[in-house]
This record gives sequence, structure tokens and C-alpha cells, in this order.
Amino acid sequence: MDDRSAVPLLIRALRREPVERTPIWIMRQAGRYLPEYREVRREADFLTLCRTPDLSAKVALDAVAALDVDAAILFSDILIPLQAMGMQVAFPESGPRIDNPVRCARDVAALRIPDPEDDLGFVAAAVRTLRQELAPDKAVLGFAGAPFTAASYMVEGRSSRDFLLLKSLLLQEPMTFHRLLEKVAEATIACVLGQVDAGAEAIQLFDSWAGCLAPDDYEEFALRHARTVFAALRDRGVPSILFASGAAGFLECMARSGADCIAVDWRVDLGEAWRRIGHDRAIQGNLDPIVLFGPPPAIARRARAILDAAQGRPGHVFNLGHGIHKDTPVDHARALIAAVKNAAAR
Amino acid sequence: MDDRSAVPLLIRALRREPVERTPIWIMRQAGRYLPEYREVRREADFLTLCRTPDLSAKVALDAVAALDVDAAILFSDILIPLQAMGMQVAFPESGPRIDNPVRCARDVAALRIPDPEDDLGFVAAAVRTLRQELAPDKAVLGFAGAPFTAASYMVEGRSSRDFLLLKSLLLQEPMTFHRLLEKVAEATIACVLGQVDAGAEAIQLFDSWAGCLAPDDYEEFALRHARTVFAALRDRGVPSILFASGAAGFLECMARSGADCIAVDWRVDLGEAWRRIGHDRAIQGNLDPIVLFGPPPAIARRARAILDAAQGRPGHVFNLGHGIHKDTPVDHARALIAAVKNAAAR
Repeated sequence: MDDRSAVPLLIRALRREPVERTPIWIMRQAGRYLPEYREVRREADFLTLCRTPDLSAKVALDAVAALDVDAAILFSDILIPLQAMGMQVAFPESGPRIDNPVRCARDVAALRIPDPEDDLGFVAAAVRTLRQELAPDKAVLGFAGAPFTAASYMVEGRSSRDFLLLKSLLLQEPMTFHRLLEKVAEATIACVLGQVDAGAEAIQLFDSWAGCLAPDDYEEFALRHARTVFAALRDRGVPSILFASGAAGFLECMARSGADCIAVDWRVDLGEAWRRIGHDRAIQGNLDPIVLFGPPPAIARRARAILDAAQGRPGHVFNLGHGIHKDTPVDHARALIAAVKNAAAR
Repeated sequence: MDDRSAVPLLIRALRREPVERTPIWIMRQAGRYLPEYREVRREADFLTLCRTPDLSAKVALDAVAALDVDAAILFSDILIPLQAMGMQVAFPESGPRIDNPVRCARDVAALRIPDPEDDLGFVAAAVRTLRQELAPDKAVLGFAGAPFTAASYMVEGRSSRDFLLLKSLLLQEPMTFHRLLEKVAEATIACVLGQVDAGAEAIQLFDSWAGCLAPDDYEEFALRHARTVFAALRDRGVPSILFASGAAGFLECMARSGADCIAVDWRVDLGEAWRRIGHDRAIQGNLDPIVLFGPPPAIARRARAILDAAQGRPGHVFNLGHGIHKDTPVDHARALIAAVKNAAAR
């Protein structure tokens, strides 16, 4: 192994070093579209899968084996650390649910900061297995919810269309909401550093709900607390990614998060997004996941259009703009990966 | 009445003429949050309400009376013209539904172009009543779905999270989808010109689903066909508004639609949006509807921030960034309108 291959391709791209080709991984790559995953889920429910290191590591590694992507991402859920903070989390088929949502200052005060080994030892164990089992040229990626999205889940208790409870708290008791965000940021730092200690080489924060916010509110309520987490990762020298969906209105704010890489969805042109974010950050994205339902030549054509928009600049990580759809044909996901890998040979 | 008041404030703002104050209306202003509306709905289901000119006009006028906004908008639904094209439309509590969705070229060929008087006479009658009953300084606003959103509804048959059917058609049979869009655009022109003939002084097209698209797809599949409709309105000298939600990634494209005014949601800064759209267009928006659940001083403060972002430039129409929420306190909607009207006196 030469010095170059000692550092995984994805990590070098996140540092904006010149790379031999654009790395690719797929959000939710270990998921229901894969027969290997469905097989495991026949034996174990979602929460059991998250909390059993061997199973969690297996489905993450199965996805890498099936697709030959450049990273394994920890198989877990952004609600798992919330459970360790005192939230009663359930994962029924209808979607995750929190049965004791946060609604007032007293609820915030009652939240605990989890210990990565005592409370989330199963996560650390899964990460350790991933790093042991994975080829050294592939990266182990850890993740957590960004503080805003995690806190919002705590308030709403479930997915929402209009985020009425969350925004009402934000408008009526902004200080309580900030206190909640501070506490979630502190817990998030503990969680992601725990993953780093176990072997994660980069961390992605998912701010999946930030797209519900006006830019001013994003800046005040989301960015501020995400910055705390990214600063802690920067202190440890760990490359980081910030993903938000529906964020085309505040990409410039995201660029000030301290994340090394900004992950964008498909609803913005990648070249234009990168210009707005600044070329001193890496960028991840941004194919519409539903394009994988199109014919393979169309998939390849659209993948090339994204690579062209990135202009071969160091710091592009190819990904979908959102998690892969559960009904995606596996062959079509493979066609995408082949298209991205072969583009380097053009 | 002097010459100036002969043209409603909203119309003058859409033409970017200097105005004495920023006009305001509220998307879905005639809706369930109003007791007058709920009263009417106790006697009539939604479809009956849409198809009965006296009731449709009444709820639209009730909203103007309750809020003293600067426009009455036709009370109808973007699916009503689709019904006249041959779609079987139902409006159950769970959300509107089309029972014979468009899935192939043959389905497209079977669609009819409605006649505004023969097929949609109840719409024309409602508009005529509105113009007769409304004060001359207030505008009558007609509307329709933009071709992309209307066509997408025809394909999906109901609201969707991922638009899998629509995007699959777009990817697999782009020519069929274009043919559908052309036909819907033709029908939309007939509908909106029918509203204009009946007395509508401006038309808004709702491209509510366009936000699911990547900018390239927006350009190819949505913009192109919206342009046809706006060109027809321009030929008639009727000011027009294009609304899309989640469109912060392709505002520049929307600016090329031919609409006089681009309506933006709250997820983009109004000043920045206007800069990207170009100050040679009017802009409408853009308060987060959920802000109306905050305390009235916060509502007024946020309304002023939007007016400040508009910098008093001619061509700003105040509105929410999306339809008003059904549980909004009416007093809070009134507080917003007072804040916008009083801002002129500062």
C-alpha cells in the first residue's frame, strides 16, 4: 500500500485534495431496496438492527459489497442518540415517533447528555467492526442529526408537514428553543466524537428539516448550533459534511457552518450551488434519487451532467440529493456508480 | 373617483407603478380559518361550493370583508379545469384524488379542451359576481394551476411525496409528457382567458409541485409550457403572477416565464430573490404562514423585515409564502394586514 491509498478517496476529496476520480456513496445505501437488507430485516426489527453491532455492521458492509461505493456509513438513525437523552422513541411502519415530546423549559431541563460508551456502546462497536472489516481505501462515515433537526423531532414528536409545534415554540419561547438546541448540540458532540474514537473518519450531520425555515431563522436557530458541533470536529481534525434538503435559499449560510463539505439536494444546479457556497468548501451531491427509475442511459447522462457542473474541481463527492428510494432497481444504482467511476476514464 | 383609484392598487403594483402603499392579499384567504367559510361549508361540500357561483363569490367576498385585503381571489381549485378535461376528480377529507389518472399516450389523446362558458360557466359567473360586488379599488384575481403542476396531478392522481409516477413518465416517455403539458397549457389558456373575459384583472398560476424538480427539468418540463400561458395573457394585456413553492434553486428560470410577477415562498430572502429574479419583474411574498401563530408583535416585526428587504421598490405585493394554515387565529391575520398597511405611514 502506498501513502496515497492509505487515506481513503472520500477523505481526500473532503479535504479538497486532487483525486484520481470523484468518490461516490449513496445516502441510505444500506436500505430496503437491497435484498441483503430485506433478508436481515426479516429477522430483526429496525431498532434491534440499530442496537445490534454485528447486524448494523453487516448491513452497512453488505451495501458496500453490493455497490462498490467508496464509503460505508454507520447504519443507525438520527433518533438513536435522542433515545439516550431520555426520549421514548418508537419505529412503527407508519414512521418514527417520540411519545414524550419536548414542549416546555422543564422538558428541556430533564434531558440527559449521553455517554458514547455507556449509553451508545452499540454504535461504537458497530463503527469499530466497520473499520476492521472494510478495505482501507474505503472510508467509514459516522453521522448524527444536526441539532436543529434533532431538536425539532423532539418537539414535533413525529414527521410534520407544517412544523406548527416547532415553529410555535421558536416564535413564542425562543430562549427555551435555544436552550434545547444547546443541549442537543452538546449531546451531538458526545455522539459524533464517540464515533470518531471508534474509527469513523468523517462525520455527516443531517439537517433534514432545516428546509422548512426562512433564511433568517436558519441562521439564528440552525446554523448557530451546527457550528458548535463542526467546531468540535475541526478540533479533532475530522472532515465533516452538512446535509440539508430544500436549502437552496440559504446555501451561503450553510457555507459558514464550519463543515468541510456542503451536501445539496437536486433542486439546485451543482455548479451554481458550489459558486454560492464558495470553492473553498467541498460539495456533495446531487442527483435526484428518482432519476434511478429512468433508463440506464438517462442515468449515465444525468450523472455526467453533474460531473460536468463540478468541472473536475477538487472537493466533489458524488451522491444522490436525498436517500435512495426503497423501490429503486439495484441494477440502476450500479449503473449510476459505474457511470461516475467511468467518467474519470473519459 | 380620480383616475388613479380607477385601477386597483394590486394591478398597479403588478405593473411596477409607484403605489401609495404595498398591496396585500393572502393565499387561501377564503379558507377554513374563517368562521364565515366554515359556516358555508356546513351546508355545501367543497365541490358544490366551487360549482355554485353565488357560494363561490360569497366566500371570496367574505374574506375581503373580514380582512380588508386588496384583492378577492376566485374561489375554486386547480383541479376544476381538469375535471372539465375529462378527469374524474373527488375531494374527500383525505385530500383530492383523480380516479382515472393519465399514464400513457392514449390517455393524453383522450383529454378534451374545455370551453370556458359551456364547461366552466360557473367559474365565469363567480368571477362576474366578484367584479360586480367588489369595491373598484380592489382587484379580482383569477387563477389556474401551471401546466406542470396540473399535468403532474393528472399523472400522480393525488398528492405525492416523491412524485415517482410523474418523474418515471418524464424519464421514460418525455415526448408523451410534453404532449400532455401542451394539451394542459392549451386548456389552461382557455380557462384563464375565460376568467379574464368575465372580469378577472390579473391571473396567478400555481406551480405548487414545480419544487420537486431539478433546475434543468424545471426549464424543460415546466417553464416551457408556463411560457405559453403567460404569452397568451400578455397578448391580452393582463398582468400575471407565477407562484412556485420550494423554487429557490431556479428563480432565474421563473423570471424567464413571461409572468409580470414572481411569487416566492418564505425559504428565500425576499431581497436576494428579487435580485436574482431581476428588478424588471414584480415580486410577491413572502412571510412564512406559520409566523401567524406567533405573538402579534413578532408578526409585525417579521412583516417589516420583508418590507425592508423590498426597499420600497415598485412592484412588491405582500403575501404569505404559502396558503394560510387552517388553524390560524383570524386576529393574527388581521394583525399582519394592519402591520403592512401601517408601514406606509412610517
